Amino acid sequence: MNASRGTDDPPIVGAVSPEIPYRPRVVILGAGFGGLEAAKALADAPVEVTLVDRQNHHCFQPLLYQVATAALSPADIAWPIRAIFRDQANLRAVMASVTGIDRERRHVVTDRIVLPFDHLIIATGATHSYFGHDEWAAVAPGLKRVEDATRIRGRILAAFEKAEVATDPETRRRLTTFVVIGGGPTGVEMAGAIAEVARQTLRRDFRRIDPAVSRIVLVEAGPRLLPALPEDLSTYAEDSLRRMGVEVRTGSAVTACDPHGVVMGGERLDAETLIWAAGVTASPAARWLGAAHDRAGRITVGPDLSVPGMIGVYAIGDTAHLTGQDGKPIPGIAPAAKQMGRHVGRSIAARVAGDTAGASRPFHYRHHGDLATVGRRAAVVRIVRLHLKGFVGWLFWSLAHVWYLIGARNRIVVAFTWLWSYLTFQRGARLINS
Amino acid sequence: MNASRGTDDPPIVGAVSPEIPYRPRVVILGAGFGGLEAAKALADAPVEVTLVDRQNHHCFQPLLYQVATAALSPADIAWPIRAIFRDQANLRAVMASVTGIDRERRHVVTDRIVLPFDHLIIATGATHSYFGHDEWAAVAPGLKRVEDATRIRGRILAAFEKAEVATDPETRRRLTTFVVIGGGPTGVEMAGAIAEVARQTLRRDFRRIDPAVSRIVLVEAGPRLLPALPEDLSTYAEDSLRRMGVEVRTGSAVTACDPHGVVMGGERLDAETLIWAAGVTASPAARWLGAAHDRAGRITVGPDLSVPGMIGVYAIGDTAHLTGQDGKPIPGIAPAAKQMGRHVGRSIAARVAGDTAGASRPFHYRHHGDLATVGRRAAVVRIVRLHLKGFVGWLFWSLAHVWYLIGARNRIVVAFTWLWSYLTFQRGARLINS
Repeated sequence: MNASRGTDDPPIVGAVSPEIPYRPRVVILGAGFGGLEAAKALADAPVEVTLVDRQNHHCFQPLLYQVATAALSPADIAWPIRAIFRDQANLRAVMASVTGIDRERRHVVTDRIVLPFDHLIIATGATHSYFGHDEWAAVAPGLKRVEDATRIRGRILAAFEKAEVATDPETRRRLTTFVVIGGGPTGVEMAGAIAEVARQTLRRDFRRIDPAVSRIVLVEAGPRLLPALPEDLSTYAEDSLRRMGVEVRTGSAVTACDPHGVVMGGERLDAETLIWAAGVTASPAARWLGAAHDRAGRITVGPDLSVPGMIGVYAIGDTAHLTGQDGKPIPGIAPAAKQMGRHVGRSIAARVAGDTAGASRPFHYRHHGDLATVGRRAAVVRIVRLHLKGFVGWLFWSLAHVWYLIGARNRIVVAFTWLWSYLTFQRGARLINS
Repeated sequence: MNASRGTDDPPIVGAVSPEIPYRPRVVILGAGFGGLEAAKALADAPVEVTLVDRQNHHCFQPLLYQVATAALSPADIAWPIRAIFRDQANLRAVMASVTGIDRERRHVVTDRIVLPFDHLIIATGATHSYFGHDEWAAVAPGLKRVEDATRIRGRILAAFEKAEVATDPETRRRLTTFVVIGGGPTGVEMAGAIAEVARQTLRRDFRRIDPAVSRIVLVEAGPRLLPALPEDLSTYAEDSLRRMGVEVRTGSAVTACDPHGVVMGGERLDAETLIWAAGVTASPAARWLGAAHDRAGRITVGPDLSVPGMIGVYAIGDTAHLTGQDGKPIPGIAPAAKQMGRHVGRSIAARVAGDTAGASRPFHYRHHGDLATVGRRAAVVRIVRLHLKGFVGWLFWSLAHVWYLIGARNRIVVAFTWLWSYLTFQRGARLINS
């Protein structure tokens, strides 16, 4: 097909069905919130959409912490990409890992096949950033993928198991100390959930240790938790966590992590379980393209989310850097990614339809609000001027998340499981290594 | 504590609470059906029970194949051991792997602690037997633990993903050929479930391959499927599988397995996914004890399930070999293990109470029946003289399994999930590597 390609190169695969007349090929990299919306926005366009993801499922990341704390099962918050798009005839899903992008030939190279494209949407998201200390990744795992969640779940539960048989009190203390690094929504949610696991779920399960006396420490380098939210909600979150027995350490940066503890604010703390919720960095997309990017590795896109200097190439979600009308960078949250995905999908549909004006409309971000849950019956919600706290906030948070879950079955199972846990304090998914 | 022990040996840990007066120590190895029943039977006895398992959960093995075929989530059929025994004050659970048994000192040695015992119940179950070809284990995984099920699930789903991007028709055929080795209940259930996944669940999910044309082959060395069941039910199961598009090959033994296929009855079949449901062998318990055992490695126990020549040591379930009153060996099924566990638990309780007669009562096995499901709306059930087939059998099978699941939450979620799948043909837990 291409003389210059080595025989070891993966085969080039093009149109879905070669016999039908040529239709523009849209390749979407990443089946996160942005990628899904982009694909859906192209459902009726005369194009061939190829949606590439290294996983076979879309993961509802906002609830990953509930898998990590044994409240939900992976399948409750993950949905097979193929099932989502079963009825979208112009889309095919490909499970493969992107290894690079050939700008000249306009090919996406993956570990399995090469995908030529006319339009490319990069929605490969972000991963954890250890601020140059990648060696911390092994000892302080972050929470981005389902595997991360099951690994963290295993570590938390295994720590209690080891503590139960530990004879040395020092060791037992270290095993029952949990440090969550980063005071954003994920960090707040993880710390609150771990406190609930220790103080409620496991309360009567052990004979030699008392999980209720576990130490849960939430470390934030900045002056307050949930910096994206207004002051009063931060304060409320911090107070609620304290009431739940979480030690909140704001204004202290972590300077070292090892298998047995952390150094924060110059002080050493022995802890067997560390969880990283501090920083994220974009996927290597900018490197693949050799495109301009910000410090977090996000591609600096034009007002229409296109990558400057490239025709028909867009970046969205956590892979894109764009400053909103309010002069603030658009936040790396699900609603923003979805809006960007929809916008780019529609732009491409317009371009294909010959509507050049519609094809380059600038993206306008609408910020609906912020929410984070602190634990059972406690959450903080900000919608425009409305600030919700406590039980009302928690109810709103629960409904919002159930609502956005994909698939009726997942909605019902998750709603039921939450009701059950709320009534019984139990967590159904307490599995180590499964 | 013991001069002859090296400093590297794990510490010896004895009674739950050293201050209370001495009570006989009962150590139970394995939290399967047998171990759980034995522990429950000792709930009111003045003993200290230590239940050891390498997992933190009890796994409902009869439904593992449903996890392996993406119908259920691991947490639906696994229950934390600690949660089960939360209210049994005389029991502590220890998550550890047994490495050996010291007959003289009467210690169980694990990777974490050493457990002295007065009474020992060995319920460590069985694992797959590859008839001396352990190298087959990597290419033809069996189905005993939750991890086995998630690994097999990942392989089945990944095979279709690879086939979708494969360009060579040979490769595609190999990737969509599934061989289940062994025609017992597990093999029959796996073959039927894979057929449903391919012909129904995934039917419209792919663009370049048609999962419905997948080959599912069930191989059995013996003359018929489900040898433990009466002829008419075997025939029914075979016919149902054929109707579901499963190739049934009875009377053909597998003589070789490799990553790309099998040799059965002298004929080579290319297949990327092999599943082992052929043989099981007992845990190494007989070796630990140096006790007499049968060809499958099961300890030959006395009529009261005690290990000959050892005081207060019992073996039950798949680790024990005993011939029933009918002259047939007691089958390796859950009900038998439960009955044995209950019997040994009561014997020890009697011994502790000074009732020597009750302490050595012979075990009488009651066979309630056999059941196996072939797939949606098709199962075979034999209860004494009653033979159930088809939908009625399937209903009975479903109810029986939901009934025996531990925990109300699991019962409800599983029942709901089955109803849902039955109505929608969908499977909720389609995750690769999670």
